[in-house]
Amino acid sequence: MSERIYNFSAGPAILPEPVVEATQKALWNFDGSGVGLMECSHRSAAFSAVIEQAEENCRKLASIPDDYSVLFLQGGASSQFYMAPMNLLKTDQTADYLNTGSWSKKAIKEAKLFGNVHVAASSEDENFSYIPSSAQIRYSQTPRYVHFTSNNTIAGTEWKTEPTPANHAPLICDASSDIFSRPIDVRKYGIIYAGAQKNLGPAGVTLVIIRNDLIEQGADNLPTMLQYRTHKKAGSCFNTPPAVGIYVVGEVLKWIRDFGGLAAIAEYNQEKAKLVYDALDQSKMFRPTVRPDSRSLMNVCFRATNEALETQFIKEAKAQGLDGLKGHRSVGGMRASIYNAFPQAGCARLVEFIKEFEAKN
Amino acid sequence: MSERIYNFSAGPAILPEPVVEATQKALWNFDGSGVGLMECSHRSAAFSAVIEQAEENCRKLASIPDDYSVLFLQGGASSQFYMAPMNLLKTDQTADYLNTGSWSKKAIKEAKLFGNVHVAASSEDENFSYIPSSAQIRYSQTPRYVHFTSNNTIAGTEWKTEPTPANHAPLICDASSDIFSRPIDVRKYGIIYAGAQKNLGPAGVTLVIIRNDLIEQGADNLPTMLQYRTHKKAGSCFNTPPAVGIYVVGEVLKWIRDFGGLAAIAEYNQEKAKLVYDALDQSKMFRPTVRPDSRSLMNVCFRATNEALETQFIKEAKAQGLDGLKGHRSVGGMRASIYNAFPQAGCARLVEFIKEFEAKN
Repeated sequence: MSERIYNFSAGPAILPEPVVEATQKALWNFDGSGVGLMECSHRSAAFSAVIEQAEENCRKLASIPDDYSVLFLQGGASSQFYMAPMNLLKTDQTADYLNTGSWSKKAIKEAKLFGNVHVAASSEDENFSYIPSSAQIRYSQTPRYVHFTSNNTIAGTEWKTEPTPANHAPLICDASSDIFSRPIDVRKYGIIYAGAQKNLGPAGVTLVIIRNDLIEQGADNLPTMLQYRTHKKAGSCFNTPPAVGIYVVGEVLKWIRDFGGLAAIAEYNQEKAKLVYDALDQSKMFRPTVRPDSRSLMNVCFRATNEALETQFIKEAKAQGLDGLKGHRSVGGMRASIYNAFPQAGCARLVEFIKEFEAKN
Repeated sequence: MSERIYNFSAGPAILPEPVVEATQKALWNFDGSGVGLMECSHRSAAFSAVIEQAEENCRKLASIPDDYSVLFLQGGASSQFYMAPMNLLKTDQTADYLNTGSWSKKAIKEAKLFGNVHVAASSEDENFSYIPSSAQIRYSQTPRYVHFTSNNTIAGTEWKTEPTPANHAPLICDASSDIFSRPIDVRKYGIIYAGAQKNLGPAGVTLVIIRNDLIEQGADNLPTMLQYRTHKKAGSCFNTPPAVGIYVVGEVLKWIRDFGGLAAIAEYNQEKAKLVYDALDQSKMFRPTVRPDSRSLMNVCFRATNEALETQFIKEAKAQGLDGLKGHRSVGGMRASIYNAFPQAGCARLVEFIKEFEAKN
């Protein structure tokens, strides 16, 4: 039916095929308007319905309370790294950061431009191969907020439960790579942000779920585009929004809803990841790089007994239609990214290939 | 052949149909890779080729000299309103702004956060219905830069030649709505920026052409994502770029190249606009709102003898497949946006409709 392969890319990543097909159609003639999705005014009734429905589906899916705003911004998580502290952190204040990998470190770097950063825990001592336990976290006395990265695409780790900030400090989460892969209790968070290109849609749109009191507390002497309140007030249409990206996010949210919602997708993700981790745990040639209690359901990182075998594995897998398995250059080895839209059949095929490869080599 | 209508939207605006079709195909299986364009790693060979070719075609089309960088950013022109002064304007310096409409005013507002703004000319006295002559411009003594808006979508005016800054101050241009609609002498500019969604592609990607010495002069204590040097160094891939948008821009640039380049498209745009302006000048019911020497070739703004007729005109035009003709709420009346990709046949059809409407009413 399709000449598409199994795409294990860490991001931009695989999307549900019905969403891709709907987008193809919408590009030519959107919703019977005679105008394509890329060419449609963002003030038109057709596009207003898209953005309203995307927000509504997001709210329903994650039971987002009314005192939170749902914003569709641009610039990726990399822009939230500075936008959150720019709005919330004053020079004499301290924000706590949990350092679980490259992306946490980038967030820390930007926050330091605005105030004090206290690294409340770090797993850098073991190359980020685990998530710190609550006993290992030392919060500062009155942090302005606590920031963490819920899933670490490069190291392949994932928080199983949220950290619990001291003194009710707001929790800020970079959820780019596991958002809506499982149920989420939004009430526990001040801000959840996510670049869309892993679990939500294409690159170029960033979902920001933010508690309204934090929007109000934001600095008001910033450039208009950098204040969260601007985008809340304008319903994410202060300037021309990334229309195609928002449309696709909306379609992905509907797909998750029709799949059964976050609990159902979480169960599916559990099953998929278990298939792969079990095979790796049973292997004599391959091993997962992450401590069992910290393993990501989204990014399965593993190594072989030597680098030559890894190179050969990646090459032969690609030839068999299993692409994107090369690990990030900073950790080497292999990485299978199996976000929401990645099919279980693809995980089964990978397991089969792992076994075939081990038997032959 | 198509159920598409004549789309006069001011932006997001009409794209060349072959570009829309190529994008539809690429979404499913990009370049035979087995992976769709939205799902393809931005570090893949396939996507690297897209961004390299887009830059190369941009350079060739506009003869961009080697000491300029071509960047593909996010956040629209609205983000350049603050990013340019944030990088270049110090508290004690003055930047000159030419105020020719709503977008100029927004740019002025953001610049004031960083330094002094001197409004060197303004056409606000006549509701922005003309472009100031060089005799009307009073530059400050040593401006850090001079900023102007080459085409004003709302008022329907367009600079016929660039302003000439005093003391060789760098010229910064918001060219969002007429970029690559005519030849451009890049050497005259320090920065040219443009949201893609009018002449270049879909919303969500911003083209920035910037002289390298200005990148180097930029402040280095800014958030990483807000420094031009970050994006130059990383070839616009510091973070995940808006891949679909960049692909579409690349295809539009090829389409302009195949059309014959900027001189050919300028001639076509002249012809299209002349058709409409001539009909309006000859009409007793309709009149263009802009002084002849300042008329935009991209956005033709016009009024009828009364508002009831305007409402009726817009409604009947839409019923006949001529959509998006309502003027911006701040000026009222009608606006026909006829960017590069808008076909001459559509202008001819509009003229016909104008004549029919006048004869009947």
